[in-house]
Amino acid sequence: MNTTFLKACRGEKVSYTPVWIMRQAGRYLPDYHKVRDKVSFLTLCKSPDLAAEVTLQPVDIIGVDAAILFSDILIPLEAMGLELEFREKQGPVFPSPVRDKDAVDRLVVPDPEEKLGFVMETIRVLRRELENKVPLIGFSGAPFTLATYVIEGGSSKNFFLTKKMMFSAPDLYADLLNKITDCTISYLKAQAAAGAQALQIFDSWAGALAPCDFESFALPYVQRIIREIKETGVPIIYFANNGSTLLDLAKTSGADVLGLDWRINLDDAVKRLGPDISVQGNLDPCALLLPPDKLEKRVSRILEQAKGARGHIFNLGHGILPETPPENARYMVETVQRLSRVG
Amino acid sequence: MNTTFLKACRGEKVSYTPVWIMRQAGRYLPDYHKVRDKVSFLTLCKSPDLAAEVTLQPVDIIGVDAAILFSDILIPLEAMGLELEFREKQGPVFPSPVRDKDAVDRLVVPDPEEKLGFVMETIRVLRRELENKVPLIGFSGAPFTLATYVIEGGSSKNFFLTKKMMFSAPDLYADLLNKITDCTISYLKAQAAAGAQALQIFDSWAGALAPCDFESFALPYVQRIIREIKETGVPIIYFANNGSTLLDLAKTSGADVLGLDWRINLDDAVKRLGPDISVQGNLDPCALLLPPDKLEKRVSRILEQAKGARGHIFNLGHGILPETPPENARYMVETVQRLSRVG
Repeated sequence: MNTTFLKACRGEKVSYTPVWIMRQAGRYLPDYHKVRDKVSFLTLCKSPDLAAEVTLQPVDIIGVDAAILFSDILIPLEAMGLELEFREKQGPVFPSPVRDKDAVDRLVVPDPEEKLGFVMETIRVLRRELENKVPLIGFSGAPFTLATYVIEGGSSKNFFLTKKMMFSAPDLYADLLNKITDCTISYLKAQAAAGAQALQIFDSWAGALAPCDFESFALPYVQRIIREIKETGVPIIYFANNGSTLLDLAKTSGADVLGLDWRINLDDAVKRLGPDISVQGNLDPCALLLPPDKLEKRVSRILEQAKGARGHIFNLGHGILPETPPENARYMVETVQRLSRVG
Repeated sequence: MNTTFLKACRGEKVSYTPVWIMRQAGRYLPDYHKVRDKVSFLTLCKSPDLAAEVTLQPVDIIGVDAAILFSDILIPLEAMGLELEFREKQGPVFPSPVRDKDAVDRLVVPDPEEKLGFVMETIRVLRRELENKVPLIGFSGAPFTLATYVIEGGSSKNFFLTKKMMFSAPDLYADLLNKITDCTISYLKAQAAAGAQALQIFDSWAGALAPCDFESFALPYVQRIIREIKETGVPIIYFANNGSTLLDLAKTSGADVLGLDWRINLDDAVKRLGPDISVQGNLDPCALLLPPDKLEKRVSRILEQAKGARGHIFNLGHGILPETPPENARYMVETVQRLSRVG
C-alpha cells in the first residue's frame, strides 16, 4: 500500500510529499455527476456502493495519495434526531433548529452502528476495494461547527444565534456541545473500527471566533474528542478553517496534523507551531486556475515553506471548487509528487 | 470640538479612548428605520438631507466620538457607468458584470463633484450640523473589494471569477483595478475638500487573498490611493477585514491607522505592527450580546491589549449587526469612554 500519507501524518520519512484534495470526490468531476444525477445528495451519502464509487473516483482520475470517505459532516446530526434537508441553492437546512432546553434534551446520542451503519458499511466496502492502493480517511465535523448548523437552522453568515446562545445562555450551549461531542466520539471510533485509517475533524467555522471564544467555546470539545479517539491509534487531523490566529490554541488539540487554509504563509505557520506536529495544506483552491508554469511555482513555494514541519501533506486550503477543470487538479497532484520526490 | 478621535489617529495624547462603530448609522436603530421606510436605500444615499439625518443619529443616541458619512462603498461604481441595484435579501447586484476588455474600456473615471455631488453635499450639510460636536469620517471601498462586486456581479462566497481574472488575465485585471483606483483617488480627495476630516478605506474582502496575492493584486492600489490622498492632510484608516496574516503588508499601505477585525488578539497585532501606527478595533459585533459585566471585562481587555499601540480607536471588528439592541451599543460606548479615562 501507498503509505506516504500515513507516514507524513506521523512525521516519518517519506520519498515524496503526499497529496489529497478536500472535496476531491465532488462536483468538479463529470464522473461524480453521472452518479449524482441518479440520486439525491442524502441518498448518495446513505448508499454504501454509490458512496464508495464516488470516493474512489479521484484516486483513479486525479492520482491522490489518500481517499476520503464520501459523506457530509451533518449526517450524524440527523441520527441525533434532527430533520435535515439539502435544498438546491440554499444548501443544508434544519427545519427545526435547536435553541432551547427542550430541543437540546430531545437530542439522542446514537449508536453509530445502528443509526449510521451505512457509513461504516461504506468504509468496509472501500477498504476492500482500496486494498493495495491508498489509505482511507474518515471524518466528522467539529462540535462548534456542527452546533452552528443546528442553532442557526442551516448555513450562516455571522453566526449571530450561535454566539447569542454562547454569550447569553452558556450552560445551554455547553449541554448542546457536550451531546454533539459524545455523538462525535462514538461516531469516529466506529469509523476507525470499520477501517478508517486516519480521521479528520473539520472545524469549518472556527475562524468566526475570537481567540478567547475559540478557547472557551470550541477547543475544549475538540480536545475531548481527540483524547478519546487516540486509543484507535489512527492519525488525527484537525482543520480549523480561517484559523490563522488560533494556531497556538489549535496545537493543543492533541491532533497529529493541523490543516491550514491558504490565508497564512505555510512557513509562518510552521514557525509558530514548531517541529513536533505535521501540517496539511494550503494552496488557494482558485490557484488551480493559474497557468501551469505559475501553478508549478506556487506549488514549489509551498513545498519549500513546509520544510521545517515534522511532516507535510499537500492539500488545498479549502475544498476544491465545482468550477475547477479536473485536468488542473490532476496537474497539481502530479506536480506535488514530482517536485517533492527526493533524490 | 471633540478631537479625541483625530488625535488617536495621529497618535497624539488623549484623555480617553475614542470610540465609534462601523455601520453605526444603520438598521439596528429604530430611528434609522423611520427614515428608511420612506425611501429606498439608494435614494437615501443620494438625498443629502436624509443621509445627513441618519449619519447624525448615532452621535446623539449612542454617544460615539466620530460620525461616519452614510453612504455605500458601491456608490462610485455606479458613477463609473455601471448599473447598480440593491435587491431585498440578495443585496447589491451589478446586472452587467465587468469581465472583458470592452466592459473595462467602457468604464469612465467620473468627476466626483459632477457625478457624486450628492455625497459632497451630504458632507457639507453634516459639517454644518456637526459643528462643535465630533469629527466626520468619509470613506471608500478599496479597489480589490470594489472589483469583486463588479466582476462577480454582486456579493460572492469564493471570489472565483475575480481570482480567475487575476490569475488568467492579469493585464485585464490591472486595467480594471487602475480605473477603480483613479476614481477612488478623486472621490476621496473630493470628500476631504468637502469637509471629511478623516478617510477610511474598507477592504472588506482582502481576507480572501493569500498573502502573496494580496501583495500583488490588492495592496499596490491601496498604496497608490494613500500616496495621492496624503496631500489632503486628513488621517487615513485602512481596514483589511479578516486580514490577520496580512498585517505586515497592510502596514506598508501608508495609512495612519489600521482597522482590525476581532479574530486577532489586539496585543498580538500591536506586537507585529510596532509602535509607529495607530490601531482601530476590535470587539466581535456579537459580543454586544454579552451580559453587562462580561461585556465590560471584554472591553477592558481590549483597552489593555491596545496599550502598546501609538494610538487606539475603539470599534467593533466588523459592522454592528441589525439584531443588536441599541442600548447595548450605547453601554459599550459608555464603558469604553469610562474605563479608558485617564486620571
